[in-house]
Amino acid sequence: MDTASITGPQLVIDKDICLGNIQVMAEKAGKEGLILRPHFKTHQSLEVGRWFREYGVERITVSSLEMAYYFAADGWKDILVGIAYNPREYKYYESLSEDTGLLLTIAGPGSAEILARQCRSQMEVMIKIDTGYNRTGIRWDDDKSLRDCIKKLRVNKKIRIRGLMTHDGNTYALNKATDIKDRNKQTIQRLTACRDIAGIPDLVLSTGDTPSLSRAEDFQGINEIRPGNFIFYDLMQYVKGNCRLNDIAISMICPVIDIRPRSETVVIHGGAVHLSKESINASGKNIFGIVFRYDDKRTDAGNGVYLTSLSQEHGIIDCSASSFADDLNIGDLLTVLPVHSCLTADCMGGYLLTDGSSADHMRGRNQDSLLSGL
Amino acid sequence: MDTASITGPQLVIDKDICLGNIQVMAEKAGKEGLILRPHFKTHQSLEVGRWFREYGVERITVSSLEMAYYFAADGWKDILVGIAYNPREYKYYESLSEDTGLLLTIAGPGSAEILARQCRSQMEVMIKIDTGYNRTGIRWDDDKSLRDCIKKLRVNKKIRIRGLMTHDGNTYALNKATDIKDRNKQTIQRLTACRDIAGIPDLVLSTGDTPSLSRAEDFQGINEIRPGNFIFYDLMQYVKGNCRLNDIAISMICPVIDIRPRSETVVIHGGAVHLSKESINASGKNIFGIVFRYDDKRTDAGNGVYLTSLSQEHGIIDCSASSFADDLNIGDLLTVLPVHSCLTADCMGGYLLTDGSSADHMRGRNQDSLLSGL
Repeated sequence: MDTASITGPQLVIDKDICLGNIQVMAEKAGKEGLILRPHFKTHQSLEVGRWFREYGVERITVSSLEMAYYFAADGWKDILVGIAYNPREYKYYESLSEDTGLLLTIAGPGSAEILARQCRSQMEVMIKIDTGYNRTGIRWDDDKSLRDCIKKLRVNKKIRIRGLMTHDGNTYALNKATDIKDRNKQTIQRLTACRDIAGIPDLVLSTGDTPSLSRAEDFQGINEIRPGNFIFYDLMQYVKGNCRLNDIAISMICPVIDIRPRSETVVIHGGAVHLSKESINASGKNIFGIVFRYDDKRTDAGNGVYLTSLSQEHGIIDCSASSFADDLNIGDLLTVLPVHSCLTADCMGGYLLTDGSSADHMRGRNQDSLLSGL
Repeated sequence: MDTASITGPQLVIDKDICLGNIQVMAEKAGKEGLILRPHFKTHQSLEVGRWFREYGVERITVSSLEMAYYFAADGWKDILVGIAYNPREYKYYESLSEDTGLLLTIAGPGSAEILARQCRSQMEVMIKIDTGYNRTGIRWDDDKSLRDCIKKLRVNKKIRIRGLMTHDGNTYALNKATDIKDRNKQTIQRLTACRDIAGIPDLVLSTGDTPSLSRAEDFQGINEIRPGNFIFYDLMQYVKGNCRLNDIAISMICPVIDIRPRSETVVIHGGAVHLSKESINASGKNIFGIVFRYDDKRTDAGNGVYLTSLSQEHGIIDCSASSFADDLNIGDLLTVLPVHSCLTADCMGGYLLTDGSSADHMRGRNQDSLLSGL
């Protein structure tokens, strides 16, 4: 990539790595007879979304109604809106469902009752089951609420219950493959038990967390998977062992703006508005990224050079444990692997590809246009 | 405000509170004979920026070159770019300085040498002094580097050294007014000592951290202040005692999307992409916001209702210590006071005002247009 035109922080996608990540997941889904309905909240990009089509993907998940509109405009016809139904958005759901196959997510009897009252056109819904993560949905062991939810939806004949879905966010905290596999097994058991309670024929059972879908192998009992993060991966997934460092498909290029030998730090233009404030623990430190020289090869052992502090626009690299800063110059470019790729992409609102072309992000970016006219 | 049209998370500015915050700071600056050069990185809004003009503000600070372009286009003619000079951006600095009075920030001899080599038109610079925060700039006790930096800049006669600036981020961690005042005094002493070393006539001494400028009263020795956060304030400032809860001028309105009595939680549409992942410790918990009913009055004692978990689009409110959730319904609107207003504003990329009008943010927002056509 020609880096001469890079002045400030730029988020770069390595398309080859993305395609590799998609292929692994598509093959796993194919082998297990699962529908792959990837979550597009990670990349939020029409361009990146199109890459999935070559692997036979026709159904997608999004995390907001705005995102459903964004992807529907690019021809996606089967979209699950994964966030719990918000009755204030009914008219937008109705409008979009005229041309696009939409699946709503119903989190419980309360929203079921409201939707049944509002709904004037055909609507297909997934019921959200909380299999233990304790974020949203009906608890797996709350038979009464599940039956009540179904009953309330059935009041309106225009509503069709298509399936049960869960997101087990607990796996993001696990390290060992065996623990993730055990948890995945439990999730599937709990979802299957809910299907038995629901007693509706042909219900789709859908799960979706990148750790399970990266490391478990047995998905018997479910029909659909909704991984999101795996397209890019990130340090959160890397430190847990869910990917290799070379599976991380996005990186932030940042210029060095200060070198401080006495503090043993290097300062980059690249802060919380670029990377997000998401941090993880690595080698006993709270870190915001792993840093490499722009042209250096990544090694899975890492190099011990971390971004240890972020303010709005500045990132501070701790160089105390290495000779990283020794021949560095102001204006040099460094590569930062982000902690949480979904949030970093959302902060940046756009991408560069390694071939020098650019890719969209739903958030857009005014900044581009500010400097592009010069 | 008419809330019927609010469907998803919206960031609302209370203009009256902003004007009150500006007035307090403008009066303090006036009384102390200080130039008020507010930092516009907090709001990043042309509309909000214009409010300062009524208080006689003509000079501003920004945190990136893009931001300088953004505000220059609205007629601001004296702009300090507070981030350390990045030599990759030289041509943009040069171009912008044709019509706009620009001040560059030089972090040390390294960038001074590069700028002196690059500079072909008149450039005015501030030298960044590190008075103890240890982020960027020349350490206050590093006479040699300061002299070296000045010497390197003077190689090029087009460069004029206008002043010395510091940002003492350490005050953000302090609680007590006496500690903040002591620290402010130390900062001014260190900056003044650097002026003596520099030995350049009429050097402007500039400081800028919201805690000191909110709580200290003695600024003798300096010429200019650059507070940013004070226009909105936020929970970070509130918990440290730098503002009252009623001085916080922005709030996020979010709809309830799930109510979970067994978990004693309420779920809103409002997550890390809206509020940022910045958190603080309050009542022994790690929190991402204080939550009120939309129409409730804020009390400085708070109500003990906190946002205790954030994922990309979801926010989880812990209601275990209160009856907050008792008569709440799906679709109700809640108000969240954000932890760090600068980052929340940057995430949202736009504002509503309490009169129902909207205000710009440099980041812009594609989302608006996605639903606005319906």
